Amino acid sequence: MEAYQLTATQVLARLKDGSLTVEDYARSLLSRIEQRDATVKAWAYLDPGYVVNQAKALDQAPREQRGPLHGVAVAVKDVIYTKDMPTQFNSPIYEGHAPSVDAASIVILRKAGALLLGKTTTTEFAAKTVGPKTSNPHDPTRSPGGSSSGSGAAVGDFQATLGLGTQTGGSTIRPGSFNGIYAFKPTWNSISREGQKIYALLFDTLGLYARSVDDLELLADVFALHDDTPPPEAPFRVRGAKFALLKTMVWPEVGTGTAAAMDKAAALLRAHGAEVDEIQLPPEFDGMPHYHRVVLHAEGRVAFLPEHRTAADRLHGFLVGHVENEHKYMHAEQLRAWDSMAALRPKMDAIAAGYAAIVTPSVPDEAPKGLESTGSASFCSIWTGLHTPTVNVPGFKGENSLPIGLTLVAPRYHDRHLLVVSKAVGEIFEAEGGWDRNSSMGV
Amino acid sequence: MEAYQLTATQVLARLKDGSLTVEDYARSLLSRIEQRDATVKAWAYLDPGYVVNQAKALDQAPREQRGPLHGVAVAVKDVIYTKDMPTQFNSPIYEGHAPSVDAASIVILRKAGALLLGKTTTTEFAAKTVGPKTSNPHDPTRSPGGSSSGSGAAVGDFQATLGLGTQTGGSTIRPGSFNGIYAFKPTWNSISREGQKIYALLFDTLGLYARSVDDLELLADVFALHDDTPPPEAPFRVRGAKFALLKTMVWPEVGTGTAAAMDKAAALLRAHGAEVDEIQLPPEFDGMPHYHRVVLHAEGRVAFLPEHRTAADRLHGFLVGHVENEHKYMHAEQLRAWDSMAALRPKMDAIAAGYAAIVTPSVPDEAPKGLESTGSASFCSIWTGLHTPTVNVPGFKGENSLPIGLTLVAPRYHDRHLLVVSKAVGEIFEAEGGWDRNSSMGV
Repeated sequence: MEAYQLTATQVLARLKDGSLTVEDYARSLLSRIEQRDATVKAWAYLDPGYVVNQAKALDQAPREQRGPLHGVAVAVKDVIYTKDMPTQFNSPIYEGHAPSVDAASIVILRKAGALLLGKTTTTEFAAKTVGPKTSNPHDPTRSPGGSSSGSGAAVGDFQATLGLGTQTGGSTIRPGSFNGIYAFKPTWNSISREGQKIYALLFDTLGLYARSVDDLELLADVFALHDDTPPPEAPFRVRGAKFALLKTMVWPEVGTGTAAAMDKAAALLRAHGAEVDEIQLPPEFDGMPHYHRVVLHAEGRVAFLPEHRTAADRLHGFLVGHVENEHKYMHAEQLRAWDSMAALRPKMDAIAAGYAAIVTPSVPDEAPKGLESTGSASFCSIWTGLHTPTVNVPGFKGENSLPIGLTLVAPRYHDRHLLVVSKAVGEIFEAEGGWDRNSSMGV
Repeated sequence: MEAYQLTATQVLARLKDGSLTVEDYARSLLSRIEQRDATVKAWAYLDPGYVVNQAKALDQAPREQRGPLHGVAVAVKDVIYTKDMPTQFNSPIYEGHAPSVDAASIVILRKAGALLLGKTTTTEFAAKTVGPKTSNPHDPTRSPGGSSSGSGAAVGDFQATLGLGTQTGGSTIRPGSFNGIYAFKPTWNSISREGQKIYALLFDTLGLYARSVDDLELLADVFALHDDTPPPEAPFRVRGAKFALLKTMVWPEVGTGTAAAMDKAAALLRAHGAEVDEIQLPPEFDGMPHYHRVVLHAEGRVAFLPEHRTAADRLHGFLVGHVENEHKYMHAEQLRAWDSMAALRPKMDAIAAGYAAIVTPSVPDEAPKGLESTGSASFCSIWTGLHTPTVNVPGFKGENSLPIGLTLVAPRYHDRHLLVVSKAVGEIFEAEGGWDRNSSMGV
């Protein structure tokens, strides 16, 4: 197996036993990138020399000074400040923009010893659904999803071991599903968003990508995520556990791939001894999609005022529409949306607390054809608004054999519980769901 | 009258009629600063050459390109990014820190033609109550309040015409009261917080300082603040209006100065023909101080993790305590606080909607003796948590003849209404409240 194929957990083990150096691992990733970049185009900025220099410095670090992510390569979505690489938001207004400051997440990752590979493509300001140049590693004629297009594609394509995304609607989970990887949106504001471009304060969440749940556990440690009651040491057992299957109020948008994945997920969990209850949310949750849309526009109106004032002609019409309030949303409606979502959050927690996890769609279907649209966020934005942690678990496939994942949901601040459950569920879905990363990638 | 004494509205008029240049005005402010800085110490960074160069450039700008704040001097709290001046947060960790990026508020101010004077002192990360070196312009042995110490003192001392502060507890309103100026905390998230250091996402609010409500109106225009129903063109009349007098659940902390100001305010409003009802909040609001404290610590735990990881020895013990969760707050308690405050917000709006404004204390009393403590935020943090707009209206004085202001409150997104009411009320309080800025300052 090439070093670029390793998970973070595997990289750390091999760095520790001396069978791999950070430099060799970095060079393996760089050659994978070189080989694949013309097709996937996941990077907004990547300087191989910078990567190798970091790797050499990490190899020189005394063992006792090495952090918990020592040497592990991370792809960073280009809406997150990095002091030694540009941050350009895929916006012509910010071409060459390079503020000499690290986002909070980057400070924490550097201190943990991470190797920063480069900046990955995004839709403009992580706010649009018009895709960047990036293609899906499993089918270059299809979208990798967005707005965390580059991080999702890079991790899915073995060009990076871990990735940072963000989610305001479905921008972390959706690329997770389309690229066949694990995607983790932690509880809102459980990781500092300092230095991450603002779209909607009440939604924006840092997202994490990996090809194994063990790797997400590593990141959860690094970012100090913790539940009030830590999950038991013993592995979570699907047998005897109770899951909820939830189609949600946006189920009419589902396609055949996700509908089949939901059926198969329920069957697999039952076959492994779990109880699976199909549940419905009370009608008061039906307003969630509308609340999300109103708040997105209302907060976007504030967030993009500076760009509108200084360079409206270089701001996408969709965002100009936010600032100019094209839908004529009143503050009263925005407050109703804020307050209604706030009132629903503890209700959702109480519902989710009755299950090991809620199983629900990540996306309507496999990645859509073409690179113009990054797909629908309908199934994700509910959870973004409700602030719950969610994990995209891969393992299923659509009509064109492209990956489809499902979302697991837990109550707010049950992030570590959710990871433990996702690991056990992921083992089943990946083994028996019908989609296989390695055969899909031909590696 | 010297140019440094002018309000923004007056400066704009004189620039327009040609009786003043930006450069002369800037030099007047700089000479005031030179004369007073050894006593007041409001500045964390100020480069007179940079100020004069900006002023000269503004004087050169063609009339048709001049913005609505053309030439008006603004003091910027040193927790807000400015691309051409350092941003050091009064933290030894960030000494010399100068990211080449402007906060959203600065982008908007520059575009409007503002003259950026310099960066003003703050408590460490705007998060502590241990004062910086700054003293109160009305009595150098006393605190100017915090954490927006420098902006409050600079505007109070005629060293700046306008000022930017921030508020997470009482950091804008409290210095407003202590320095005898108008302080405006708009509705939460109605001005972008991009580029403003995070303490608690759900509380942090950009705050605005001026010596007249007309100047706050100018800033409200520049920042595109708007109500669903704009206030009528005709001036607001106190006669016939109904005000609420609210002592709040923290009234036991009040001192003689504020207690007397509350009595006098009610008497003055009644004498001018208003109805003043003393109201009490329903008992469910009694939890607000606790909720605010829990959320402050819980969100601070996330916000300061990067500094704790990289330089805990140079982080104040109070903030180390946040990150290490010294009070052992559980997430369940944090969620109760988040959700309870969210549920109270529309209830508060409904109460406030019954009045022209709620009149309530800004601070327990006049500025405390000594520079060690910036005073109590008890009376402010309620409103920070409830997201309502508040204005500190000066006009009263304490036992030592130092200024005391009172807070006016309106429902969320009734910012423009609140300014209109504050103007009418301020005229009465300033004329008849017993404290006079010019005689206090000896100008």
